[in-house]
Amino acid sequence: MSGRIRNQQFAAKVVEADEAAELIRPGDNVGMSGFTGAGYPKEVPEALAKRVAKSHEQGDPMKVGLWTGASTAPELDGALAEVEGIDLRLPYQSDPVSRQKINEGRLDYTDIHLSHVAQRVWQGIYGDLDVAVVEVSGITEDGRLIPSSSVGNNKTWLEQADRVILEVNSWQSEGLEGMHDVYYGTALPPHRKPIPITHPSDRIGEPYLDCPPDKVIAVVETESPDRNASFTPPDATSEQIAGHVLDFFELEVRSGRLPRELLPLQSGVGNVANAVLAGLGEGPFDGLTAYTEVIQDGMLQLIDSGKLQMASATAFSLSPTAVERFNRNTADYRDKIMLRPQEISNHPEVVRRLGCLAMNGIVEADIFGNINSTHLMGSKIQNGIGGSGDFARNAYVSIFVTPSQAKGGDVSSIVPMVSHVDHTEHDVDVIVTEQGLADLRGLSPKKRAELVIERCAHPDYKPALRDYFQRAQQSAFGLHTPHLLDEALSWHHNFVQRGSMR
Amino acid sequence: MSGRIRNQQFAAKVVEADEAAELIRPGDNVGMSGFTGAGYPKEVPEALAKRVAKSHEQGDPMKVGLWTGASTAPELDGALAEVEGIDLRLPYQSDPVSRQKINEGRLDYTDIHLSHVAQRVWQGIYGDLDVAVVEVSGITEDGRLIPSSSVGNNKTWLEQADRVILEVNSWQSEGLEGMHDVYYGTALPPHRKPIPITHPSDRIGEPYLDCPPDKVIAVVETESPDRNASFTPPDATSEQIAGHVLDFFELEVRSGRLPRELLPLQSGVGNVANAVLAGLGEGPFDGLTAYTEVIQDGMLQLIDSGKLQMASATAFSLSPTAVERFNRNTADYRDKIMLRPQEISNHPEVVRRLGCLAMNGIVEADIFGNINSTHLMGSKIQNGIGGSGDFARNAYVSIFVTPSQAKGGDVSSIVPMVSHVDHTEHDVDVIVTEQGLADLRGLSPKKRAELVIERCAHPDYKPALRDYFQRAQQSAFGLHTPHLLDEALSWHHNFVQRGSMR
Repeated sequence: MSGRIRNQQFAAKVVEADEAAELIRPGDNVGMSGFTGAGYPKEVPEALAKRVAKSHEQGDPMKVGLWTGASTAPELDGALAEVEGIDLRLPYQSDPVSRQKINEGRLDYTDIHLSHVAQRVWQGIYGDLDVAVVEVSGITEDGRLIPSSSVGNNKTWLEQADRVILEVNSWQSEGLEGMHDVYYGTALPPHRKPIPITHPSDRIGEPYLDCPPDKVIAVVETESPDRNASFTPPDATSEQIAGHVLDFFELEVRSGRLPRELLPLQSGVGNVANAVLAGLGEGPFDGLTAYTEVIQDGMLQLIDSGKLQMASATAFSLSPTAVERFNRNTADYRDKIMLRPQEISNHPEVVRRLGCLAMNGIVEADIFGNINSTHLMGSKIQNGIGGSGDFARNAYVSIFVTPSQAKGGDVSSIVPMVSHVDHTEHDVDVIVTEQGLADLRGLSPKKRAELVIERCAHPDYKPALRDYFQRAQQSAFGLHTPHLLDEALSWHHNFVQRGSMR
Repeated sequence: MSGRIRNQQFAAKVVEADEAAELIRPGDNVGMSGFTGAGYPKEVPEALAKRVAKSHEQGDPMKVGLWTGASTAPELDGALAEVEGIDLRLPYQSDPVSRQKINEGRLDYTDIHLSHVAQRVWQGIYGDLDVAVVEVSGITEDGRLIPSSSVGNNKTWLEQADRVILEVNSWQSEGLEGMHDVYYGTALPPHRKPIPITHPSDRIGEPYLDCPPDKVIAVVETESPDRNASFTPPDATSEQIAGHVLDFFELEVRSGRLPRELLPLQSGVGNVANAVLAGLGEGPFDGLTAYTEVIQDGMLQLIDSGKLQMASATAFSLSPTAVERFNRNTADYRDKIMLRPQEISNHPEVVRRLGCLAMNGIVEADIFGNINSTHLMGSKIQNGIGGSGDFARNAYVSIFVTPSQAKGGDVSSIVPMVSHVDHTEHDVDVIVTEQGLADLRGLSPKKRAELVIERCAHPDYKPALRDYFQRAQQSAFGLHTPHLLDEALSWHHNFVQRGSMR
């Protein structure tokens, strides 16, 4: 025993993962912990996948509904998708195997605003939640659960599930205890009250998750690292994008539209995001805060540099090096990091009130400022919308960032018409590529188009975009948003047909 | 003098409309009152339009930026658009003349979530507001302004404008005094606090608008009715749609997903909305409330029938008959109707907290559940997104309603791919046509497509939709959201080319 289970009632329920997985029934809806590769259960999902594989061999295939916080890891999404053990996947995924199965039409997936999930589960939209499989970093003497490296939807899973399987992962830092803020004040309408957060550092809940011991049908001990991808230093493109974003912030401060300490930052995951954060570490802004989904390497560095006072999120997403640093010095971060349930980290009410500066990556943007965050060529899902909609719609400034081209230049990230819309023209303030920044606020569609083409498009694609826009203004059905309907999606069609938008 | 101006300081500023219009300078940004044809200034805009026309004759054309609450009337939008006196129009319009000018490319228009406008004006996104032209129904002895039949953005205009022109309209009912709730507690981040509304009836502000008298450069007396379109009794199609919506509510109540008194209703304007409200008047639900933008005839009838306890909105939109009834019996409605600023009536925080049941009309829906609320054939603006995004994204259930076809059957409201997206697949719960209702909650895109085609499409278009979806599943680039890129917009293209989607 790891010593992490300090309560006897829970300790008495310790079993092996295989045994725990046997307690999940075919057809169950299973709510698992996990958000961006942090805090997902490490052993029960693989044991469940083995069971599923066996059920296929026996000619009676078993499937479960799989609900999580957000993305997880190969041991969870990958393993269960591989054996086709998932009936309906929600609300987000980024696993290569599950992505492939979805795009082959072999796995049903519904892609949901991350702030909506808890409410909808309470509402009963997805059916009953049968089992929760939740990783924790420990269990206190009095039976409270110490969350691990993500909170996600765990509060909801533990409340809503009939049966609960816990994984206690002794790899997680003991220093996590006290770093979470689990708010138990949500309700369904008409019983909702204001969420009393007016600053990212406001603590409104408890550091522990509650779970009635009699719902717990198994406890599994693990000692396994999170899926922590190694950190790639920002490339030139990311640094150029970051430079444009920082220039924009400086201009906004000089113009009096942003305070000197900016407003709470929200930042998607990935290289560009990390580059922006790195840039902020060297920039003129002090006393920064973050109200975001994920604490990544760049955030930790910003805290280390003293620039970032406080980061509120629902999960970590760190490189192995950063995890090691964090685990060694957890106490130093105790009053600077808070992890909350994702219904709070992403809550429209709080995001709007705090006035977050939202920065999110995209698949493509169109000249009129519509954003596709999820689909390749209109049909193939990449990951999902995640929290980008929660933040962009309610942000003080919603910024979308992307390299101007992909696939070695065969794909332009700026297109005449996006092949799928996740953020409408009404929700997009600023688009940034390494080429430049287009501030679309207050502009009519045609003015936006000029700016997006001239500032953001790659030089290789600029002439074709100008030509499209020019011709559309001559012959479109209407001149508010001039489009050529027989050509608007031809760039994507060309890519599908011959591998290039050129 | 009408006796409506009970303060001497304001009374001393009374001038004719022509004189007031002279005080507006070329290039000014002008914030005017008005929301769905209620409470807009009746005389100064036309006087301004005359001035603009003269400036054209003199070879030195004058234009102003025109900002309102939402739509207004021919005397405002129509008059100013006709003489091409508008530089940039925001945030919404529904006027035939201005629509035509926009679609001819002669008028710049930016179409904004109605809850976003005040914040963005405070933020300085649209430049400085030079002049406010605001209709009120009276001025008290101590110089407070009694709002008229809409509140809209008036609080913001009066606070932000350098100079203020008031129109005091004695046509408006004196009984309006006390019916408004103007909240002065908003701020820019990082100074925002929770908005303390937990029930549609909560009064959190004051019944008057404040304006420093020294900003007031002119007061104009008018006696003119609002643009009140006559009420058309629901046709068979609207009644069928309403019937499906009511069946859905009953099912939700029986399933325990909605309380018996439902949740606060939000309803767009128009025939279908009125039909749903009429249906509720005859339905089994009591103790209803509304938290919505607009009080229309159906809402008034629901109050009269005793079914609707309380309606919070930002404006009236009544037929002449209903206005007469309201004006005659204003006292009866005093504790059942409250008009608030549109930043509060549409605030995401409040809409989400109350859990509104949002019902909005659309232009078209696609088989995967994306909604176009604004554009004809991808390019021509109809009206604008209005508050539909504020409500749909944050609703407890977001319902979109439309007849299944338009233009005598030449246009299908259900298409393979919408030609413009205002509400993404992530924001659309239920689609209803006279054919039936598709409850899309919790479904993957392909399952949604089956349901939308089978339940909502008109029989004349069903075979073609089935055929498209069938073939897309055979050859799309990915099978999450199977589309045929060279065909997805062909229905719209056909309509543009030969006048029919058939």
